[in-house]
Amino acid sequence: MVIVQKYGGTSVGDIEKVKSVAKRIVRTKRKKNQVVVVVSAPAGKTDELNSLAHQVAKIPNQREMDMLLTTGEQMSVALLAMAIHELGEDAVSMTGLQIGITTNEKHGQAKIVDINTDRIRRELRKGKIVIVAGFQGSTSKNEITTLGRGGSDLTAVALAHVLKASLCEIYTDVDGVYTSDPRIVKDARKLDMISYEEMLEMASLGAKVMQSRSVEVGKKYNVPIMVRSSMNNNPGTLITKENKKMEQVLVSGVTITENEVKITLLKVPDTPGIAAKVFEKLAKSDVNVDMIIQNKSTTNFTDISFTVFKSELKRTLPVIHQAAKIVKASGVEVDKNIAKVSLVGVGMKSHSGVAAKMFSTLAKKKINIEMISTSEIKISCVVDGKKGKAAVRAIHSAFGLSRRKTVI
Amino acid sequence: MVIVQKYGGTSVGDIEKVKSVAKRIVRTKRKKNQVVVVVSAPAGKTDELNSLAHQVAKIPNQREMDMLLTTGEQMSVALLAMAIHELGEDAVSMTGLQIGITTNEKHGQAKIVDINTDRIRRELRKGKIVIVAGFQGSTSKNEITTLGRGGSDLTAVALAHVLKASLCEIYTDVDGVYTSDPRIVKDARKLDMISYEEMLEMASLGAKVMQSRSVEVGKKYNVPIMVRSSMNNNPGTLITKENKKMEQVLVSGVTITENEVKITLLKVPDTPGIAAKVFEKLAKSDVNVDMIIQNKSTTNFTDISFTVFKSELKRTLPVIHQAAKIVKASGVEVDKNIAKVSLVGVGMKSHSGVAAKMFSTLAKKKINIEMISTSEIKISCVVDGKKGKAAVRAIHSAFGLSRRKTVI
Repeated sequence: MVIVQKYGGTSVGDIEKVKSVAKRIVRTKRKKNQVVVVVSAPAGKTDELNSLAHQVAKIPNQREMDMLLTTGEQMSVALLAMAIHELGEDAVSMTGLQIGITTNEKHGQAKIVDINTDRIRRELRKGKIVIVAGFQGSTSKNEITTLGRGGSDLTAVALAHVLKASLCEIYTDVDGVYTSDPRIVKDARKLDMISYEEMLEMASLGAKVMQSRSVEVGKKYNVPIMVRSSMNNNPGTLITKENKKMEQVLVSGVTITENEVKITLLKVPDTPGIAAKVFEKLAKSDVNVDMIIQNKSTTNFTDISFTVFKSELKRTLPVIHQAAKIVKASGVEVDKNIAKVSLVGVGMKSHSGVAAKMFSTLAKKKINIEMISTSEIKISCVVDGKKGKAAVRAIHSAFGLSRRKTVI
Repeated sequence: MVIVQKYGGTSVGDIEKVKSVAKRIVRTKRKKNQVVVVVSAPAGKTDELNSLAHQVAKIPNQREMDMLLTTGEQMSVALLAMAIHELGEDAVSMTGLQIGITTNEKHGQAKIVDINTDRIRRELRKGKIVIVAGFQGSTSKNEITTLGRGGSDLTAVALAHVLKASLCEIYTDVDGVYTSDPRIVKDARKLDMISYEEMLEMASLGAKVMQSRSVEVGKKYNVPIMVRSSMNNNPGTLITKENKKMEQVLVSGVTITENEVKITLLKVPDTPGIAAKVFEKLAKSDVNVDMIIQNKSTTNFTDISFTVFKSELKRTLPVIHQAAKIVKASGVEVDKNIAKVSLVGVGMKSHSGVAAKMFSTLAKKKINIEMISTSEIKISCVVDGKKGKAAVRAIHSAFGLSRRKTVI
């Protein structure tokens, strides 16, 4: 049975941790598994290298950046392989190039185009544990590339797919995926299982467990992914395809994101095509708009509101003011103090009344809803930033998420 | 014209030095040269990685050690390429694997078996400066290897050979090769030129400028090597094949090594084959013996003396005691307080009286000679360790080495 394990930077952040990870890997191997391990750079290493690069060049060349950054994972895999040898098992470390992860030529955020598993399979057959440098690959011309943010997760899930692994374990510093952020909701419960779709909504909504891209690949190829902690032996959360058992569970979690701002174009003359003009302008300038709301009033004017990421506000404000001019808005209002609270669950598909219950829960707490957006398995509400956490707690409690199952 | 430049670890030890090296490279390029640069790991990096490895494993696996250590040079080349871009020239960094330096499979001290120059030539034709990670190569199976001590010099000289470079510049923290160690002999003079043979004697005798292996390769393929400082623009020392001009120079330099100990087997019964027995025993235990002296006395006993490296003494003492038993020596004497002083010069071949002058110079200074060994272009004397430096100064002065030419 092939098992792929991925260890993040904090899991190999110092020598003692490397040794402890080695022990876990050896245990897995000795349970008669073939083990492939994907490792990130030691915590802090990538930042350190990044800082060196920026001391040398204002905008470091991206190809050279890949050359530099990939040394971090190469360090990790070599040290981990040594630590495994020390425990009496055979291990062999490999760079992305050696493993045969071929990518396109987009340095810094390359896409995997092919994985040749010959070498891995050969080493596994010899009884070796294969230690793979995450986050990296190489082009067909032997140029070293990196896969962008969350790249090591992607390496792990992709390898689990091509090796037909029975499980892809993502080791991190949390026990798994929770019904909500335990720092906000005290009785948040760890989920035993969650669907890819729900996980995608959770990931993009602020549960920082796994990058969306890796979950998407897992979904596409139906790779069972277990998110668990490298600090203990608790069972984690299994990310898998939707099943009957999940549908009985109405909602899986409540998330909050506080990294968006709400922008309103005020008193826009209400003529057809007005929204199109605004958002075409924004799209052309690469502004990522998340939620959009347009409320026709009884007059001939309308307000158009939308949210963008705080980090992009400075860059996008001039574009927004231009757009406001084009559609003859009377002004632009920016509200930085908002929170987006979202309820996620595949059970919503087959149960009605979820939205109503969410809205009434907020109403009872006197929390005003400023914007709403929904998908098949998600409802998001923008509320006053100061009331975001209270909203999360109220919804978590109303849907009984701290108990095992929640059906209306 | 192709020029190969090699920069050691101290030359790229911090960001400011990387930038300064980049400037020098760009200057060379703008003089209408095609430039290939070989770089070592930043000073201290290799030690740091070594220490990490030894915290993980008592005897780290050599393959994994190569995997780990090669990240040091990979860092250097990426940062240097970025720094060159910042100065407006195009550069491309490469690992040993990318450049096409194929080695055998002896990890930790691999031998180069082939260099494919296609990629380098292609990049040079595009007007790029090629930055090569020194000290590393890869096997035909894409396994990463290292070339052992002084490996970066070797990379440089080997590349200069296959690229038919007009010059191989070795940048270091000294101005070139001196007639003697300037810390010992105040008026030591930098040599403009030295033959490969002399440089080999100097290198193995303690002039720490270049590793012998690289000089041997330079000699074999007649690669002109210029040793010079990366801290200034002084002309360095050209290492080249022996020529008429050199033969007029009687001796090139005086060196001193203080890293050997003298071991004497006392009162060995003098029967044929006694020396063979001793040194076969030592050879079997991989003890490197340097100088050997055996003096038959008028009695039927003889003393056998030889020198070994201080660093190997502890390991070899038990072997020596065994050997002493075998040949029935009355005892073993260890003298840690010795210095080996050597006079080097191709001119010796065609001039007589050099040895006599050296011995009489020492005699005048009342310095007793304990052992002598000679080669075609070298005379070495072991003297009392406390008098080693005085011996160097006396010989340097007697042969007029601080002046340009020295003929008897």
